[in-house]
Amino acid sequence: MHIQIVGLHAPNAPRLRALLGPGHEVEALLAFPDSGAIHSDVVISNSIGAGEASRLRSRLVHVPGAGWEQIACPSLPSGTTVCNVHGHEVPIAEFTLHAILEHCLRLWQYPAHLDAPAWAQAYANRSQHEEAHGKTLAIVGFGHIGQEIARRARAFGMHVIAVTRSGKKGSADLADEFVPASTLDDVLPRVQCLVICCPLDDSTRGLIGARQLALLPAQSLLVNVARAEVVDEQALYEALRDKALARAVLDVWYQYPKKDQAPVNPSRWPLHELPNVRATPHISAMTPALLDRRYRFMAQNIGRLQQGQPLLNVIYQAP
Amino acid sequence: MHIQIVGLHAPNAPRLRALLGPGHEVEALLAFPDSGAIHSDVVISNSIGAGEASRLRSRLVHVPGAGWEQIACPSLPSGTTVCNVHGHEVPIAEFTLHAILEHCLRLWQYPAHLDAPAWAQAYANRSQHEEAHGKTLAIVGFGHIGQEIARRARAFGMHVIAVTRSGKKGSADLADEFVPASTLDDVLPRVQCLVICCPLDDSTRGLIGARQLALLPAQSLLVNVARAEVVDEQALYEALRDKALARAVLDVWYQYPKKDQAPVNPSRWPLHELPNVRATPHISAMTPALLDRRYRFMAQNIGRLQQGQPLLNVIYQAP
Repeated sequence: MHIQIVGLHAPNAPRLRALLGPGHEVEALLAFPDSGAIHSDVVISNSIGAGEASRLRSRLVHVPGAGWEQIACPSLPSGTTVCNVHGHEVPIAEFTLHAILEHCLRLWQYPAHLDAPAWAQAYANRSQHEEAHGKTLAIVGFGHIGQEIARRARAFGMHVIAVTRSGKKGSADLADEFVPASTLDDVLPRVQCLVICCPLDDSTRGLIGARQLALLPAQSLLVNVARAEVVDEQALYEALRDKALARAVLDVWYQYPKKDQAPVNPSRWPLHELPNVRATPHISAMTPALLDRRYRFMAQNIGRLQQGQPLLNVIYQAP
Repeated sequence: MHIQIVGLHAPNAPRLRALLGPGHEVEALLAFPDSGAIHSDVVISNSIGAGEASRLRSRLVHVPGAGWEQIACPSLPSGTTVCNVHGHEVPIAEFTLHAILEHCLRLWQYPAHLDAPAWAQAYANRSQHEEAHGKTLAIVGFGHIGQEIARRARAFGMHVIAVTRSGKKGSADLADEFVPASTLDDVLPRVQCLVICCPLDDSTRGLIGARQLALLPAQSLLVNVARAEVVDEQALYEALRDKALARAVLDVWYQYPKKDQAPVNPSRWPLHELPNVRATPHISAMTPALLDRRYRFMAQNIGRLQQGQPLLNVIYQAP
């Protein structure tokens, strides 16, 4: 098969070549050609504009990630299949549980290195910390990521409330309660950890606003691993500043650095001045294992295409 | 019933009183009286010398913790029952999983607060981190604590090797492999996380020495939540100094601060000078929930004694 990896992921061509073995041609392109039909069996890219899409002559477009909002699906020639890959739920769930445990343990109160005076002082001033066990965790968005967070949180003895669009009851193996986003306010007073892992769309933008943050108990933790804008920016700043919310661990932001532009704060509000914010630069899913998992999946799907087997993770089929 | 709480735990008398309700007398004593018989139904203490033990006239001695090495059991009058309490396995398992996730995520490489320049720099220099998923965890000691660590680690997709005295195969629900301590060396080259949670005795003192630390892969993490001396002090220092071991999270130590004595380092070797050691001052189990769990258990056992039901967690019955 002839496979083209185009754009940001082009440097991963050797990885795919190693997985596919001989008999396949893996071509790395930094960008699509400016004009003319683009012939190959498979295109791997996470960004295909309408003009490019219409010039593709491929059986399969494989997005090397979960999000496919940058693929101009309606412009693809009839018969083209689009697939995506997951796998980021594993590192994101680990990031989230780390944030919860860190919030409970509060190890930051002790120096990391104990010489004699620090040891005497730390031992004399040891203080109790919290347990995740028995606490209530609300997970807003209960797809791949939310379910992997829930699986781990329940092993810790946390009470898990899955907040979904419909509130449709799922398996009791997955969560203790299922509630629709429309009744989120009713459960928030019982919640000590609120994790945001839903897609950003018109129904979720600003879903967590001043009212929701005020309903959370004051000792609560908020973790956002989805998109910043699910949480109202000003309301988040004010709740943290006023200690209405004890702590936030934020991996996703309202403003991102842009090439050739002056540095910007990650928020228009001075979240970086608050001691109860743990900021991380959008790294929750950045693991070599993720890349490995995703390329193995794509290699498997390319094998299925070659052998005429049904493809996995089909997200669009051009009519 | 007449209950005496003696010694360090005396300040918890109000907690027990509230749990037992009326009809019970809970007496707080900072120390046992110097002479004469000591009459009560129940004594709660974690330290009873031989002289004191022989003067007790109680049906039940309840240790308010797991360790009962400071109870002079052979000196107790015939018919005295000794019980202990657990519950520390929950916070210790949380501490351990936090240490594992922290080691994988390496968030310390990013500033906790991102203003515009820090955000631009951190975003440009994001780097991949590790996952706990798929890593191999050896748990030395597979009692209450080891099993709770295993339950959580397996929810993360870790491969768990239980290292026990006998190596007797346990349930596949608990661990992926069971090996005896005598063949520990054979599994160490496959282990990325080594957790020590066994009792300290003649068979475990120095169980992890220079040879064992050298067998671990260089990127490994060691977590000790048991007793320091299970790990050879000099060998640990040298392995960490020489990066033969990537990191250690140590909550238990070789030297403790003593009243009216000059401050001591936690180790005779300068572990506090090594950047790859995370020291905590023996706090892994210090949670209010633990105390609550343990006093609820003791109140339940006192109720059972009163009603003539079999006691729970009997560890010694004076003949």
